[in-house]
Amino acid sequence: MKAIFVTGAAGFIGSTLVDRLLADGKTVVGWDNFSTGQRRFLDGALRNKNFKLAEGDNLDLPALTRAMAGCDTVFHLAANADVRFGLEHPSKDLQQNTVATFNVLEAMRTNGVRRIAFSSTGSVYGEAAVIPTPEDAPFPVQTSLYAASKVSGEGMISSYCEGFKFEGYIFRFVSILGERYTHGHIFDFYQQLLEHPGRLKILGDGKQRKSYLYVQDCVNAMLQVIGQGTAQRAKHGVEIYNLGTPEYVQVNDSVGHICGALGLNPQLEYTGGARGWVGDNPFIFLDTQKIQATGWKTSLTIEQGIGRTLQWLQQNQWVYEKRP
Amino acid sequence: MKAIFVTGAAGFIGSTLVDRLLADGKTVVGWDNFSTGQRRFLDGALRNKNFKLAEGDNLDLPALTRAMAGCDTVFHLAANADVRFGLEHPSKDLQQNTVATFNVLEAMRTNGVRRIAFSSTGSVYGEAAVIPTPEDAPFPVQTSLYAASKVSGEGMISSYCEGFKFEGYIFRFVSILGERYTHGHIFDFYQQLLEHPGRLKILGDGKQRKSYLYVQDCVNAMLQVIGQGTAQRAKHGVEIYNLGTPEYVQVNDSVGHICGALGLNPQLEYTGGARGWVGDNPFIFLDTQKIQATGWKTSLTIEQGIGRTLQWLQQNQWVYEKRP
Repeated sequence: MKAIFVTGAAGFIGSTLVDRLLADGKTVVGWDNFSTGQRRFLDGALRNKNFKLAEGDNLDLPALTRAMAGCDTVFHLAANADVRFGLEHPSKDLQQNTVATFNVLEAMRTNGVRRIAFSSTGSVYGEAAVIPTPEDAPFPVQTSLYAASKVSGEGMISSYCEGFKFEGYIFRFVSILGERYTHGHIFDFYQQLLEHPGRLKILGDGKQRKSYLYVQDCVNAMLQVIGQGTAQRAKHGVEIYNLGTPEYVQVNDSVGHICGALGLNPQLEYTGGARGWVGDNPFIFLDTQKIQATGWKTSLTIEQGIGRTLQWLQQNQWVYEKRP
Repeated sequence: MKAIFVTGAAGFIGSTLVDRLLADGKTVVGWDNFSTGQRRFLDGALRNKNFKLAEGDNLDLPALTRAMAGCDTVFHLAANADVRFGLEHPSKDLQQNTVATFNVLEAMRTNGVRRIAFSSTGSVYGEAAVIPTPEDAPFPVQTSLYAASKVSGEGMISSYCEGFKFEGYIFRFVSILGERYTHGHIFDFYQQLLEHPGRLKILGDGKQRKSYLYVQDCVNAMLQVIGQGTAQRAKHGVEIYNLGTPEYVQVNDSVGHICGALGLNPQLEYTGGARGWVGDNPFIFLDTQKIQATGWKTSLTIEQGIGRTLQWLQQNQWVYEKRP
């Protein structure tokens, strides 16, 4: 049996996927540069004889190519996932997302690996003209370097599918929640409340509407789709799926869930404006009919997902220790 | 008066734009690495005191940044424009288009230059679901590395417009024809007929339908739009325009025009299939209502453009000399 290669294997979603693949009896090579990945997330995997950790960076193409030998499927999840600070270091999205994805594709080509799953983002729809936003929404204008780099990755992957007969699965995620969650608004809010339980600073006006998906539901969706092999029958060898819940919440709702769960009643301070930051999209809600048509459905509501995330953060406060 | 910076200044479209800007009394800095640009195309410009040639490569960011000092507008036309052979050297589109465009944006940011016009392509629509294809057509699947790299460039530019208050003009070109045309199907057909007037090899079945635009009409459109400053009023600081003619021709029609003009009747040999090459789009026809609404219109029909191109190639056979 050939192995499955997971980039970003020590990340939030990557390590969850690795554990799930190993539980399913698969052989897995995990690849990570540990820039944001956590070794502790691989504690379980490292005790499994079917798991091999390969430490390295996607920008090191020769090492990446060597590590991928003997695999037949790649889950390319490694990325700079920091949407908010793209403008502070514009080359990061280009290097860690665009160039990195190209290297993954080239390493695959060298190794004769043709099946790839890719974590794209609902941010590619920019400020979508149609909400809920379907996969074939009107051609969007990109408003963040993060999303631009993911559109770039999608384009290269689909071109490799067309040109080199790859089989591509592109998943446009909403924000993902759950165990091992290490960045995003719940992470930030909980950190603030740990430091000062009496006040909470909220970016924007708190009315931003966003959709969130529980990490196990995210992994389930990817595995289900790949198992069905839909891209093999697709016109250009690639299938694109929105991954999200059929609901959304306001940031203020999320604040309410968090404070309720913690039994806190902090004073709320809003930075103001409809957007949390430049390029923030005040309303992200994806049309998920396509993924639902495969038979997949969510196991947790957004509120349950927030609760699960918060519980994990409470039990794993070490994730805050490394932060500057 | 600040200068206008033109990347790819020695290219087909770039040199035509440079001459036009100089004729309009502008000061121009032309930037080219002469990988495909032709020094002869700048013969006229180099005699004009308002023109300065800066020789260098977009991948050399420090040199690019220095060369751009004192400019207030950038026409970023330099690119690997070779759509057909993308699969033979996949990194070329990434480097010369994606990374190069990033460098242009960074050089602009360093120099405080905020206005950019960008030559994108109708190929970004892939095999479009809607024909004629409007700017907000359904989110396409990319089928060539060339188009993927242009989508990437578009995304970075619009993100800089959103994040750094740039003013962006993105033009999605159909194939451009006219004086100084140095690659494409007319170039190839004429070359074949010079070598053996009795036969002509045609990629695909000859039924591919494509639209072509005369280079002076292309330059007129860009200058008209930028003069109107539409992006300053656009939601994200960026405006996207299809540039094409309101007609299309079959490759076979084009062959007829060429052979008619040359008085030849070669035997036609088709390689077969609906596509000229892997990733070729058998039907490119853009909806140009948006650019037409600015008051712009074409001066030549496609047939006239083909005639003008052929006439120029006949008078400038030196363009074939450097070819391997």
